[in-house]
Amino acid sequence: MLENLKIGILGGGQLGGMLIRHAIDLGLSISVMDKDANAPCARYTSSFFQGSPTSYEDVLAFGKDLDVITIEMEAVNIDALRELEKQGKKVFPAPDTIKVIQDKYTQKQFLLSHNIPVVPGEAIEDRNDLYKHENKLPGCLKKRRNGYDGYGVMVLKTSADIAAAFDEPSVLEELVDIKNEISVIVARNEQGDVKCYDAVMMVFSGEKFVLDFQEAPAQLEEGILKEATILAEKIADALKLVGILAVEMFVTKDNKVLVNELAPRPHNSGHHTIEASNTSQYEQLLRAILGLPLGDTSLHCPSLMINILETAALISNRQEKLQSLLAVEGAHLHWYGKKGNRIGRKIGHITITGSTMEGVISKAATIRKILN
Amino acid sequence: MLENLKIGILGGGQLGGMLIRHAIDLGLSISVMDKDANAPCARYTSSFFQGSPTSYEDVLAFGKDLDVITIEMEAVNIDALRELEKQGKKVFPAPDTIKVIQDKYTQKQFLLSHNIPVVPGEAIEDRNDLYKHENKLPGCLKKRRNGYDGYGVMVLKTSADIAAAFDEPSVLEELVDIKNEISVIVARNEQGDVKCYDAVMMVFSGEKFVLDFQEAPAQLEEGILKEATILAEKIADALKLVGILAVEMFVTKDNKVLVNELAPRPHNSGHHTIEASNTSQYEQLLRAILGLPLGDTSLHCPSLMINILETAALISNRQEKLQSLLAVEGAHLHWYGKKGNRIGRKIGHITITGSTMEGVISKAATIRKILN
Repeated sequence: MLENLKIGILGGGQLGGMLIRHAIDLGLSISVMDKDANAPCARYTSSFFQGSPTSYEDVLAFGKDLDVITIEMEAVNIDALRELEKQGKKVFPAPDTIKVIQDKYTQKQFLLSHNIPVVPGEAIEDRNDLYKHENKLPGCLKKRRNGYDGYGVMVLKTSADIAAAFDEPSVLEELVDIKNEISVIVARNEQGDVKCYDAVMMVFSGEKFVLDFQEAPAQLEEGILKEATILAEKIADALKLVGILAVEMFVTKDNKVLVNELAPRPHNSGHHTIEASNTSQYEQLLRAILGLPLGDTSLHCPSLMINILETAALISNRQEKLQSLLAVEGAHLHWYGKKGNRIGRKIGHITITGSTMEGVISKAATIRKILN
Repeated sequence: MLENLKIGILGGGQLGGMLIRHAIDLGLSISVMDKDANAPCARYTSSFFQGSPTSYEDVLAFGKDLDVITIEMEAVNIDALRELEKQGKKVFPAPDTIKVIQDKYTQKQFLLSHNIPVVPGEAIEDRNDLYKHENKLPGCLKKRRNGYDGYGVMVLKTSADIAAAFDEPSVLEELVDIKNEISVIVARNEQGDVKCYDAVMMVFSGEKFVLDFQEAPAQLEEGILKEATILAEKIADALKLVGILAVEMFVTKDNKVLVNELAPRPHNSGHHTIEASNTSQYEQLLRAILGLPLGDTSLHCPSLMINILETAALISNRQEKLQSLLAVEGAHLHWYGKKGNRIGRKIGHITITGSTMEGVISKAATIRKILN
């Protein structure tokens, strides 16, 4: 019975908060572990554990009384999750799935081994090793582990940039000629049922590699959208995924679709599913990991999602700007309630819905004016 | 700043749970008090207090560190709320508003004093007093206080029914010739802004006076819907409401609109606003009590909400029936996760959305077949 299941989330950020939002719809009990007692979703559970998702002991202690364990971040301790699985807990996505994905190089090798087109890239040991790959520049350098929201990604134009490059295991990717960036959220349950959301268009802020805004559905040729969906389904099957997966892809100027990165958890390219789909990505994750039928993923209206990053303007006019944002009809504010005010940090998002994409885009302009 | 506000809810049932669902969207901290430690929303807050909302001491203790206090049930201690107001807390709806409404007779007198058409009714002291009102039968007897979901309401056909009637302060109402029952949810904030949702049609189960299902928008003549909206706005203004109010009304066979009952809190006739409106009644309540702009109340699709009451069939086939319900596209399950299984108790609801009311009604038939 749903009400007696004990479900745990590793990570207590806004994604966890939105997962709890949808766990309420199913009357589920959710425990959360995060290293920060002030994590956004700590306040939305009677069962919060302060601990590190990367610590073997903490994860094991957190999981011991739970029935099902899932994640809202990739940086988690795989050995502890494997041990919990041995103890009979359901761990979804499976530890092996998370392990393949949490390292950007093994992730790429996995995709290649399944004939999924990816951005070509090579493993780099450290900064010294980069000098041996000077001939590959310009390129995009990504830390193999723990990157998020643009942290852990940098472009190296010439060998002059190496001195300031990451000095840790990384992947040096070719700079491909990107026309568009898109994302498909795919869900798969234990029975092997697979459902995709429509591909969305992602637009990143110039230098920071952090998602600026997202349009759903992506306004691209049918053939490309179909290819993206087929790739996402193929990856979900290859991973024997149980849960949800965001598949971020590049569409190149010559219309090739290349997989950029995977995230086996709720993803900010799927926030719009709360307002624009019958089943949100959060509910879909819960359905997938609890053996429930996957929900309808069709979009019932166009939408545009804008990330809200902390700025000086937002700090000094918080109250006034929130009031203005909340006054825009069709704009759905998600404010993460984070403590402190570090510039550049993701502190909320807004999903705009409407009957036409033109109307939605025009409201986005209003929102941007308020945010700036 | 939203993230630093401490908000408290008196009552921890499913309405409180759905209120927390929408508080997550604003990053708010929510404390909950309920007399039952297993109340549905106890698990969705780090700040749950076990105590009685009708106890002066409990309410006062609960409120002492809060900034804003609201309710999800009417049976709360008014004196304690007044004292908290004196201490500088915001209490919305105001204690006076709750007090007028929590007694069905003073509620009726208040409406009459503002020229709002109501079902005629008289105050009854106790069972003995009913015998003095035999000439008013048949009639509908309602306990003055603490009725909910059909508890506290009975029809008296003849004086033979008096022996089994409530033996406490009640209201004996005329039996009016009802064609339809409708409800309008209205919100009002401190600035005096007022917004109504479209009137919905409510259909009650024959003998139990508990809402069976609800259609939104109500398929009735424009004139009646307009009158219902005007009445709701007028009542919100008369009460100087800050918060939301459900105005349940009868449409008589001669097309008069009479106010039946008020509820100054989220209401099950407004559940559909989660899926069918840009602003749910829960978010609207939060906006109203926090001095934020009221949200857009327009419905973007037709919907039908079915209450799920506990039955023997549901108890014995829980898992299978939940699976079937979750497989119906466009059906949004809200499962309250209540402990125990008392027959007749409200344990969830389903909101069906679709592009046409015909489609929605046809899916409702599927849902009913599963529930039976």
